[in-house]
Amino acid sequence: MRETESRRAQPASQQGMRRANLALVLGEFAAGPRSRADVAAATGLTRAAVSSLVDELSAAGLVAECGPAAPSGRVGRPGTALALDPQGPAGLGGEIGVEHLAACVVDLRGEVRGWRRRDVSNRGRRPAEVLADLAALLRDVSAAARLDPAGLTVAVPGLVGATEGTVERAANLGWSGEPVAEGLRQALAAAGADALAALPIEIDNEANLGGLAELWLGDGPEDFLHVSAEAGIGAAIVVGGRLLRGARGYAGELGHLPVHPDGPRCPCGARGCLEQYAGEAAVLLAAGLPGAGDDWVALLADRAAGGDELVRAALAAAGAALGVAAAGAVNLLDPAAVVLGGGYAELAEWLLPAMRAELAARVTVRPWSGEWLSASALGRRGPLLGAATGVVRAVVADPARFAAAEA
Amino acid sequence: MRETESRRAQPASQQGMRRANLALVLGEFAAGPRSRADVAAATGLTRAAVSSLVDELSAAGLVAECGPAAPSGRVGRPGTALALDPQGPAGLGGEIGVEHLAACVVDLRGEVRGWRRRDVSNRGRRPAEVLADLAALLRDVSAAARLDPAGLTVAVPGLVGATEGTVERAANLGWSGEPVAEGLRQALAAAGADALAALPIEIDNEANLGGLAELWLGDGPEDFLHVSAEAGIGAAIVVGGRLLRGARGYAGELGHLPVHPDGPRCPCGARGCLEQYAGEAAVLLAAGLPGAGDDWVALLADRAAGGDELVRAALAAAGAALGVAAAGAVNLLDPAAVVLGGGYAELAEWLLPAMRAELAARVTVRPWSGEWLSASALGRRGPLLGAATGVVRAVVADPARFAAAEA
Repeated sequence: MRETESRRAQPASQQGMRRANLALVLGEFAAGPRSRADVAAATGLTRAAVSSLVDELSAAGLVAECGPAAPSGRVGRPGTALALDPQGPAGLGGEIGVEHLAACVVDLRGEVRGWRRRDVSNRGRRPAEVLADLAALLRDVSAAARLDPAGLTVAVPGLVGATEGTVERAANLGWSGEPVAEGLRQALAAAGADALAALPIEIDNEANLGGLAELWLGDGPEDFLHVSAEAGIGAAIVVGGRLLRGARGYAGELGHLPVHPDGPRCPCGARGCLEQYAGEAAVLLAAGLPGAGDDWVALLADRAAGGDELVRAALAAAGAALGVAAAGAVNLLDPAAVVLGGGYAELAEWLLPAMRAELAARVTVRPWSGEWLSASALGRRGPLLGAATGVVRAVVADPARFAAAEA
Repeated sequence: MRETESRRAQPASQQGMRRANLALVLGEFAAGPRSRADVAAATGLTRAAVSSLVDELSAAGLVAECGPAAPSGRVGRPGTALALDPQGPAGLGGEIGVEHLAACVVDLRGEVRGWRRRDVSNRGRRPAEVLADLAALLRDVSAAARLDPAGLTVAVPGLVGATEGTVERAANLGWSGEPVAEGLRQALAAAGADALAALPIEIDNEANLGGLAELWLGDGPEDFLHVSAEAGIGAAIVVGGRLLRGARGYAGELGHLPVHPDGPRCPCGARGCLEQYAGEAAVLLAAGLPGAGDDWVALLADRAAGGDELVRAALAAAGAALGVAAAGAVNLLDPAAVVLGGGYAELAEWLLPAMRAELAARVTVRPWSGEWLSASALGRRGPLLGAATGVVRAVVADPARFAAAEA
């Protein structure tokens, strides 16, 4: 028999208890302003313990007083309300797109405090040039927001595999084995952003971050499949509020799920992959707009909205292929919902009907309702929001680690 | 922003620490015989704490002395070795197959201490009759093993959905909405097995339990896709050592993943499902053996081993379809391995080559090696072993809960 799960646990300790309780208390404030007494009542901790934990969180700049607490019905003065400190540690996000760069700052509460975007074609461009441009955007958005970031996460249109901070393959950029975190750190230093160069830098796949943004900022369930398109088609599988990354970090390659196994050859080498039916190039070709250029999503949305039947038919065909692939994924994974995100969200009006029809026809051994398929309200802002938001969520989830890193 | 994960935590407590440490210590013994001093060294707990925890585990019948400990190189007498008690609480498993019933007992160490099987066609049979037969098997195997089970889990060839203990749909039995746990409890009481009737009874899908058996008893990785066939095709998705059950418990319906979307109509209502290419009826038809009867797996294996080319071709075609479906699942989930289990394991010689070829051709955006696809050594014993083993693993993972339930 293998080791039981409990063997991997560490013995419980006083330090472990304090760490867990710091997170428990900060988690309460993450749900909104409240008094120390409110937190004691909600957590079962004593008022003295809560006060001591709040002092520690306050010293770390994580919570701040925000006025008198609402009357609670409890005996005694209502006390002072505290909340996550909007001037506390922030989340810095970056995005490398095929046709753009972007950067944003969210505060500890998750509110967007700065957003910059620059249209630039990064296809085949040298990584050092791309990262120099991104570093400048990050420096500028961070300086304007006047907050201290606790970390930086960058969304990339490619596979981020076993080696941390390295893009294993980004076909549309022409990158492979590219140490993006290290390169960005150098670019930030060269741009005079020394404080940013010293941050923890994480690199993640844009589809993963888009899915996490939907989890954190959307109002849907905690088990869903998020299907998005930029240059390729990516999926994020969220199970019980956690992203399923796979054994080696490659999960979510829905674009290469075989839709018609004898179909056209895909650049990946296989036949009939979903991307051959619903990817950028396939849809543009079917729409009579091959190689249409910078913003294929906006172009298709404009044409479809204007009544272009060829474009509408191309989108319906793409929706049907997405529906076949999604039906396979739903039968396999049993998510509570499927969310169409990224560029697809802006095309949802023309993709969803055919996609719904395929799901209805093919998901029959378990209940399925057409309402469980929807378009993300975040659209193409998802990956960058996910990048920045993840930084502050990590602080809130384990404030002791943040405080220790600061010390 | 949603609630952070930490908000769901409970405040850490002394009782929680003791509970965690009981599990930590018992987990050490689950890895093999060792002394109290060995456990103290491995866990970081003091010897006094370990002794106190061992006393509690011993009083609950979970660990027992098993001779002098091996010399450790540490100062002092080597002490006495302890191990999981082979006479301690056992796991009782039952299995309802379409053409058989079975029951087994494993001891706390996971060793099989009793196994009974009865061939009987359960197609369309009244649940009460089936459960009466199963209750007699369970009573007899349990009496012969002379161990006290801590619980009973039953493997069923059907969907076990939201309602605990209830089989939502078992098409091959003709059951729907059947309260199997309650019916079995009554049948056990009627069979004079009052102690068994008082046990916690769980019902689970056979494919899930087969996958868990592979996780617990196999020597593969902790992230894999387990594909098995009894009457239908089922999959178990294991991620990080845990079974992915899905939002409503329906995950793993690989049999209804669309393989050729325009293919033949499936009884489920959809077209071109995997079962139309690799399910029992489809393979038997292609092999020229429609409606072949009791043990289709043994029949096909015999014919294929004997050189029957039609049967071999039918199995190769099934393997190719399994490969297309598995390629989709691998691209989506990124497992470290795919394991062919249940009846397929006995047909692996003729299924694997075509399945490997499809996986090699279709899993290209991430590394894939043919060796990562293999046949389970457990074969058709998997679901029943998984049922019984899960009971004792639950005891080892949380001994405090078991001790409390006994008190």
